[in-house]
Amino acid sequence: MALIVQKFGGSSVANAERVLNVAQRVVDIHQQGNQVVVVLSAQGDTTDELIEKAMEINEKPSKREMDMLLSTGEQISISLMSMAIAKLGFQAISLTGYQAGIFTDGTYSNARIEKIDGSRVRSELDAGKIVIVAGFQGMNKNGDITTLGRGGSDTTAVALAAALQADFCEIYTDVDGVYTADPRVVPNARKLRDVSFDEMLELACMGARVLHNRSVELAKKYNVNMVVRSSLNDHEGTLVREVTEMEKMMIKGVAYDKDIARISIIAVRDIPGVAFKIFKLLADVDINVDIILQSIGRGDTKDISFTIARSQLVDAVDLINKNLDYIGAKEVNFTRDVAKVSIVGAGMANHPGVAAAMFEALAEADINIHMISTSEIKISCLVRWDEAEKAVQAIHKRFGLDKEI
Amino acid sequence: MALIVQKFGGSSVANAERVLNVAQRVVDIHQQGNQVVVVLSAQGDTTDELIEKAMEINEKPSKREMDMLLSTGEQISISLMSMAIAKLGFQAISLTGYQAGIFTDGTYSNARIEKIDGSRVRSELDAGKIVIVAGFQGMNKNGDITTLGRGGSDTTAVALAAALQADFCEIYTDVDGVYTADPRVVPNARKLRDVSFDEMLELACMGARVLHNRSVELAKKYNVNMVVRSSLNDHEGTLVREVTEMEKMMIKGVAYDKDIARISIIAVRDIPGVAFKIFKLLADVDINVDIILQSIGRGDTKDISFTIARSQLVDAVDLINKNLDYIGAKEVNFTRDVAKVSIVGAGMANHPGVAAAMFEALAEADINIHMISTSEIKISCLVRWDEAEKAVQAIHKRFGLDKEI
Repeated sequence: MALIVQKFGGSSVANAERVLNVAQRVVDIHQQGNQVVVVLSAQGDTTDELIEKAMEINEKPSKREMDMLLSTGEQISISLMSMAIAKLGFQAISLTGYQAGIFTDGTYSNARIEKIDGSRVRSELDAGKIVIVAGFQGMNKNGDITTLGRGGSDTTAVALAAALQADFCEIYTDVDGVYTADPRVVPNARKLRDVSFDEMLELACMGARVLHNRSVELAKKYNVNMVVRSSLNDHEGTLVREVTEMEKMMIKGVAYDKDIARISIIAVRDIPGVAFKIFKLLADVDINVDIILQSIGRGDTKDISFTIARSQLVDAVDLINKNLDYIGAKEVNFTRDVAKVSIVGAGMANHPGVAAAMFEALAEADINIHMISTSEIKISCLVRWDEAEKAVQAIHKRFGLDKEI
Repeated sequence: MALIVQKFGGSSVANAERVLNVAQRVVDIHQQGNQVVVVLSAQGDTTDELIEKAMEINEKPSKREMDMLLSTGEQISISLMSMAIAKLGFQAISLTGYQAGIFTDGTYSNARIEKIDGSRVRSELDAGKIVIVAGFQGMNKNGDITTLGRGGSDTTAVALAAALQADFCEIYTDVDGVYTADPRVVPNARKLRDVSFDEMLELACMGARVLHNRSVELAKKYNVNMVVRSSLNDHEGTLVREVTEMEKMMIKGVAYDKDIARISIIAVRDIPGVAFKIFKLLADVDINVDIILQSIGRGDTKDISFTIARSQLVDAVDLINKNLDYIGAKEVNFTRDVAKVSIVGAGMANHPGVAAAMFEALAEADINIHMISTSEIKISCLVRWDEAEKAVQAIHKRFGLDKEI
């Protein structure tokens, strides 16, 4: 008998028919002799509708009250799922975040889970019930409802799996699993059987938005076996887990991200503390920086370039322009004509020639590289925005990712 | 400085505009230097929509899961109201039933409040906030959400007023207050300035469905001053309170109820325990009996008649027919062609001539009386269904209820 946590997103429970379909799937796993905990998001557009209701009344609502409002979405989903399972003749019980013992810090709308008291969930499982838990929500120490922010339901599922020491945490999505590249760009992209946490983190960062990073980080921390699979079929999915074959190098996939922009700060004085000043300024207004590249100094100045999400470009450039004197820089320039293409795979650092092969593939496709950044398990290149897909295809082919290794 | 609990129903908060209107009203009272607790129902049709969602999935959902589902309706209302008050520049905080310390027994869908811990509400009030509480809901000792059943939000408001020792509990409705008769039937019906708890209970029972009985009973038990007033205007409303002028007789109103049916059990053996058998049978299947009349025995048999809600007629007659032998009766007959007309007023029992005056008014209007029942503060007559309105008009006129006394 295994203990399995299954998470279904909003589109999987968008209407009565889909709720009943998911219920059948859950019951099947239960009937195979497993204990099952189901974590759900709000139905379809419910969250958007609730946000609209709020905006009609107050375009700047307090985060506490938004959490009070939005948490009803998941509560509706779980009660309906419990009714659906009962309809199929099985025992189920729905639990809100706090009833499932999910305690968070006090950061409304973006709370972090501090502790899970799994006793209620355990005792309901031991009583033979399928337990349905509201994703995305918890309770702070004042007894107030908090929500977990983006990717919140995935985080709930992984955190529960960790607390309950579940055998698997299955994340159901609208894709079959994690692919070597986006199948819309590379038609013969191959589904991976497994991928390590670190590789998954890099792939997620790189625009392969199958899993939210936060849930993968949590899974890594508590060594939870995650499975990404489709709610539309019975295909096996991709297992995300602790790496097992440390020495074997394998390129796991090619990812790309077109939602970025590049900023360069030109002729910064080459003295200690400059980078700190720049990135502290950005961090203070919650602008997330991705790749950072610093040129080798020329005389007594150097250039610092970095990428950020496109939506934050204007704010970031404004902020830096206002602080050029404070930073000690001459000017700032930026471009939106940029995309990031990356290959991800553990052990890459110890296999020379991988980077060269990637650059060769790009050169043969006549694609110019604007910036390069490497880590233990990935190599990223900035290329022109409209060349991203072509770059992914060239690299995917060069590494033979369509073939099972 | 007074502490006022205000309850608004679902139609008063049905959309953004109405929510903001109610918020303005609440803020006005707050600005007059009062502490305000607002109790809300679910918006407009929300509850019906949620019930429909459930029915699409499972036409016999468990009551626990229905409570989990339906309680989201009030949670949406309170968060929106809190946002609306914030929009007007005042501090507010929304609290679910359990956050407001409302603890109930374990009867899902029809729970009774066992205890209120008002400490959270008090401390939020003392911090200068307007406190918005979800009506209709509480929590049982397992930490599960319960709902209070019909009239639940009124009950929440009165129970909170009692626990907080509020000065007034204002129930906002779509009428100005309690009238001497239904203004649709008696155009010159007069609004009462005040009415006692007992009178209100009789009026409510008699079909004047301004307040739910359960809330009035609770108000009586804890001596909470209730005010019934309109959410659409600033008229004064009707104060429902402990009777003050015990000896003064005053007819408070004429009420009628057309949603009843009459059952008679014929030739019951005239021995002890028969009435118990009949009404225990009915009580066991939750059929509420209203007026009971037992004829004087003829020989060794007697007849027992009673009225019930029309919707329960078929079930009740079936049940009695099946148990005629057990009851020791010969036959049962029934009619839907019946309505109940009542006059209500404290001190009636000590003022002979009231009953006579009522019967006289009916006789002059050529209305036959089918059954009579009296209590300390009311006299009820059964008349033909289609004569109810005429009867109310005749009695209202006879007692001069259109004139302020």
